Amino acid sequence: MKLPRRVKIVEVGSRDGLQNEKDIVPIAAKVALIDSLSAAGLQAVEAGAFVSPKWVPQMADSAEVLARIARKPGVSYPVLVPNMKGYEAARAAHVEEIAVFGAASETFTQRNINCSIAESLERFKPVAEAAARDGVRVRGYVSCVLGCPYEGDIAPSAVAWVASALHAMGCAEISLGDTIGIGTPARAQAMLGAVAAKIPIDRLAVHFHDTYGQALANILACMELGVAIVDSSVAGLGGCPYAKGASGNVATEDVLYMLHGLEIETGVDLDRVCAAGAAICAILGRPPTSKAARALGAKRQS
Amino acid sequence: MKLPRRVKIVEVGSRDGLQNEKDIVPIAAKVALIDSLSAAGLQAVEAGAFVSPKWVPQMADSAEVLARIARKPGVSYPVLVPNMKGYEAARAAHVEEIAVFGAASETFTQRNINCSIAESLERFKPVAEAAARDGVRVRGYVSCVLGCPYEGDIAPSAVAWVASALHAMGCAEISLGDTIGIGTPARAQAMLGAVAAKIPIDRLAVHFHDTYGQALANILACMELGVAIVDSSVAGLGGCPYAKGASGNVATEDVLYMLHGLEIETGVDLDRVCAAGAAICAILGRPPTSKAARALGAKRQS
Repeated sequence: MKLPRRVKIVEVGSRDGLQNEKDIVPIAAKVALIDSLSAAGLQAVEAGAFVSPKWVPQMADSAEVLARIARKPGVSYPVLVPNMKGYEAARAAHVEEIAVFGAASETFTQRNINCSIAESLERFKPVAEAAARDGVRVRGYVSCVLGCPYEGDIAPSAVAWVASALHAMGCAEISLGDTIGIGTPARAQAMLGAVAAKIPIDRLAVHFHDTYGQALANILACMELGVAIVDSSVAGLGGCPYAKGASGNVATEDVLYMLHGLEIETGVDLDRVCAAGAAICAILGRPPTSKAARALGAKRQS
Repeated sequence: MKLPRRVKIVEVGSRDGLQNEKDIVPIAAKVALIDSLSAAGLQAVEAGAFVSPKWVPQMADSAEVLARIARKPGVSYPVLVPNMKGYEAARAAHVEEIAVFGAASETFTQRNINCSIAESLERFKPVAEAAARDGVRVRGYVSCVLGCPYEGDIAPSAVAWVASALHAMGCAEISLGDTIGIGTPARAQAMLGAVAAKIPIDRLAVHFHDTYGQALANILACMELGVAIVDSSVAGLGGCPYAKGASGNVATEDVLYMLHGLEIETGVDLDRVCAAGAAICAILGRPPTSKAARALGAKRQS
């Protein structure tokens, strides 16, 4: 197996995860989570979203979270920004990296943000221009890269088109998300191959959901093609908004266990991530969905 | 990715799984489970064990289970046999395939069956000879192929040695088991490579536990080396005897989801396996550990 020597983990539990949890987590717990994740060695820790508090009440306190966290040099704290209003708020909070979000499915885009894919890209343009002017890094998310809850299968060419548009707009990194977790390794490689034909692979991240248990196998298959940026969520925070009781984001602990077993460098301390996950799960009142976290926890107690 | 076109699944939930569940399942439920698994298209369904009922009360009724199941032509129903006494009982129950079990760890073998690895192989010899004489197929299990709960890491050469001995004794198929589920893909490939240097790869099966969430990634990596026989357990039956609350055998549903996504032929109907898993889990009073089964179940209900 040809695999990258080093992989960057983008921790999304502290935003994508908490945003999809039913409970709203107290601000002190969010700050403690983000700080413990950066202290564990994670280089990128999502810190919030400047979106409508009416639609996403879980993220209403993002400005205060950003004011309170201990910003560690070398660590980026991306926040989600849907439009110029969000961008201004993010800048006021001294954000150095933002994330914009598109999807490879027309129906998903319509239902999620009430416009076409092309219109959504138009909305990001002024944000991307402002970010370029201000020296703010932009991460682009593409959802539904392997399937859509409304449309079913999504063509790799559709993903490549949206990813290329985000790249052309100036996104430094583009995260390819299997939002409903239906992908398997060969389809993941085919999709990634179509995108990598248009964008250098070192600009691409993979974002897998473990809904059908396939996330690690998919990550392995994508690393075999050269991907070296992986999104994951501590303790598997987030669940799956499209299938109640099913898993969502792949757990950071499971990803780290595999990467370290493969002797791939991450710079992250798995035990400290497990501790961070256990702390937030205690607040949420449920065990981590990470199998590695559970097994390591059981071992520690025996 | 170079992958096999067809994979045989060996369903171990009905023996290895139930043997490691705390509850003893009523005989009618065992028979219904085995029959529903063979009806789902599985070619090999473990049916019991002729071991001491004092040590393994869960398997005390194996002779009666074998008498009651509807044996489907073309399906094998292997049973575990530790010695000649067990072999005679298996023969009396008209068994056509038996399984013997070794381990690649001296300490594990001592604690599990109170003898050295070499002594354990000596014990299997008369069983293997009788089986050859009677035209009974023999499957060999090797435990602890990637690690041992007592010794830690296990050398690939130790696995290759035990597997070769079982092969020389006449085992038609040798299943390589990561008993504590600690393996990751590159180590799994290194171990498999060492064994495949001594035994044709079409005689080898992989048996992964999902304790750290790594099973599917390991299976994928081993299929890339040519393995085309995979052990798995419906609904993830069995748990992990070495870490309370942790996962054991990889779930058949998750394996099937991946294989079918990879367009690998199995001859097995995933929906029927999900139904078989749901039925036995209702009796055990807990949900299946299979993520694919949960996601498909949630989708069906929505």
